[in-house]
Amino acid sequence: MKFNLTAEDKATKARAGEIFTDHGKIETPIFMPVGTLGAVKAVHFHELKNFINAQIILGNTYHLYLRPGTDVIEKAGGLHKFNSWEGPILTDSGGFQVHSLADIRKIREDGVEFRSHIDGSKHIFTPENVMDTQRKIGADIIMAFDECTPYPCEFSYAKNSLQLTHRWLERCVKRFRETECAYGYSQTLFPIVQGSVYCDLRKESAEFIASQGMEGNAIGGLSVGEPDAEMYEMTELVCDILPKDKPRYLMGVGTPANILEGIALGVDMFDCVMPTRNGRNGMLFTKSGIINIKNEKWKDDFSAIDAESDCELMRTHTKAFLRHLMHEGEILAGQIASINNLSLYLWLVKEARKKITDGTFASWKKEIMEKLMRRL
Amino acid sequence: MKFNLTAEDKATKARAGEIFTDHGKIETPIFMPVGTLGAVKAVHFHELKNFINAQIILGNTYHLYLRPGTDVIEKAGGLHKFNSWEGPILTDSGGFQVHSLADIRKIREDGVEFRSHIDGSKHIFTPENVMDTQRKIGADIIMAFDECTPYPCEFSYAKNSLQLTHRWLERCVKRFRETECAYGYSQTLFPIVQGSVYCDLRKESAEFIASQGMEGNAIGGLSVGEPDAEMYEMTELVCDILPKDKPRYLMGVGTPANILEGIALGVDMFDCVMPTRNGRNGMLFTKSGIINIKNEKWKDDFSAIDAESDCELMRTHTKAFLRHLMHEGEILAGQIASINNLSLYLWLVKEARKKITDGTFASWKKEIMEKLMRRL
Repeated sequence: MKFNLTAEDKATKARAGEIFTDHGKIETPIFMPVGTLGAVKAVHFHELKNFINAQIILGNTYHLYLRPGTDVIEKAGGLHKFNSWEGPILTDSGGFQVHSLADIRKIREDGVEFRSHIDGSKHIFTPENVMDTQRKIGADIIMAFDECTPYPCEFSYAKNSLQLTHRWLERCVKRFRETECAYGYSQTLFPIVQGSVYCDLRKESAEFIASQGMEGNAIGGLSVGEPDAEMYEMTELVCDILPKDKPRYLMGVGTPANILEGIALGVDMFDCVMPTRNGRNGMLFTKSGIINIKNEKWKDDFSAIDAESDCELMRTHTKAFLRHLMHEGEILAGQIASINNLSLYLWLVKEARKKITDGTFASWKKEIMEKLMRRL
Repeated sequence: MKFNLTAEDKATKARAGEIFTDHGKIETPIFMPVGTLGAVKAVHFHELKNFINAQIILGNTYHLYLRPGTDVIEKAGGLHKFNSWEGPILTDSGGFQVHSLADIRKIREDGVEFRSHIDGSKHIFTPENVMDTQRKIGADIIMAFDECTPYPCEFSYAKNSLQLTHRWLERCVKRFRETECAYGYSQTLFPIVQGSVYCDLRKESAEFIASQGMEGNAIGGLSVGEPDAEMYEMTELVCDILPKDKPRYLMGVGTPANILEGIALGVDMFDCVMPTRNGRNGMLFTKSGIINIKNEKWKDDFSAIDAESDCELMRTHTKAFLRHLMHEGEILAGQIASINNLSLYLWLVKEARKKITDGTFASWKKEIMEKLMRRL
């Protein structure tokens, strides 16, 4: 993997860049649609490519390990061959999912023992086997195995957890370095900064993570319920410590406003289920603001879903039609809403990139944030 | 509407033709994907056009009348404007749905009183108001309001029902002729032959329907549980009576085999929820045979869903991947399966048309039917 910084904003800490992977280039800042089980919910791959302009998608190690199972993905020749997505893939390590989804879990020094949320079967994730699994899945970008602390979290718990995450990271790095790329293309490992909302811990963690010298770095444990102000404070503190010449990934974030603020603080990569999950529930992000498409007021509103959208489907279909589909529980409603939201997110980061390059990011950000976050 | 017969098979009663509507040409024989609520379930309109090659779609008056309501569709400027489908649309009259879906119904001389399956509200469908509703929906092809008899059905019930359907038809035709096209393009009315599985009644009905001199004719009350042999017997009997120079529509049919047999008996138009409904449940129609994609045997079968498919998605995605999505209840599974099945159905009728024109329909039909209906 290679990262070039192509522009830096003067008024903020925003940066534009490009990441080169063996599955293609990623222009940063970038938003990564979440394909939990190897596919973005309700969205075809041809739509990701042609309507949404996705450059990289995310997969979840926890889910893929349980279903279809690493063996099936390995037999297919990796996740790219399995799901036919030709661009870069990043896999989450499962650190977050074993805490949020698994039925019973025991955190031990060697790893996390848990029971599958599907059938109760017992499994263990260790830093080593999670590296091996992600190698086999064939992710271009592999995430370190960490403990994602909840919010709120006692200082003492956060401190101990952080130290465990750091010890696990050393084991991840060791295993990663001892093993080969699985399918002939290069794979890279991103470590994850933790430390809850404690400045001391975040500082300690960011310095430790930076010292590992990996090709990119991530910020975890945010967007888990804390106020936005705390998320931004921690993000800024960490970004200021992480090396400038490597991409920074703020995990699980967020709303369009969160993404714009994150970019302004020096973040390059984002992912979140919000555009697809909220879309399926009728929440639409448009260039004019946020719409609850189930609302009665759209019943006979025959204006386009988003007249300014980059996606022709949103300029063609009307609010009244999408409201009708959503009310009737038609699958197509979730399909259209997911494409709408993802295309807005991908437009947002592309536009941010342009504005950073032009040197007009700060003023544009203020203006567009007001428009995007307005409730219609 | 205009219909040209372009070729007739010598060995069977199959015909190739073309129907001209103000929303475009339909090449027959044709299969019409069902868009119950104005949209084909789990399928985008751009996919209907580009991946499936649909030439006409169906809407259901019963459903659209209840939701979003005729008033909303009228305000939109008709269903084409509401759902953005630019090709021809045929609407079912609701005759079938008031019997199969509505909670409580009373069949009276003037029409059918029923309660909505959604909220229990009371409504009445009469031949007159069903014509008016379909005018307002803006269907290119409007269906007569009929009683669709169940199977099995006593002769005396079928006879009385048939006479009611015929009296209703006279009222439908009268109302249709007294009213104007709703949105500046022409609309046409197809009457429906009933008579259950009784030759005498079918003959009487087909003669009565033929005598109305409408631009196309339909065969209803089949594919409701009777053995295939009875369906074919009734279809042949009716086709032999209906005028040759007008399209014949066999309603609610069926499997690929049913469609091939129907074509051989002189049917020009078909519709059925099978490709989409069964697709969502994991039943795939392919050029090599029928697949239950949930089956364990596909778990690590990395061959294409249908290597010979006209649709590139089916040549790209593997059986193992679709099985995985289907097992996980991913929305994308239903999307892919629906496109697969519909593109197979549309390929089938297009290919049948070619073979009729080439004069090789009979031998091709035998060969392809064996392949298509084989269980893999």
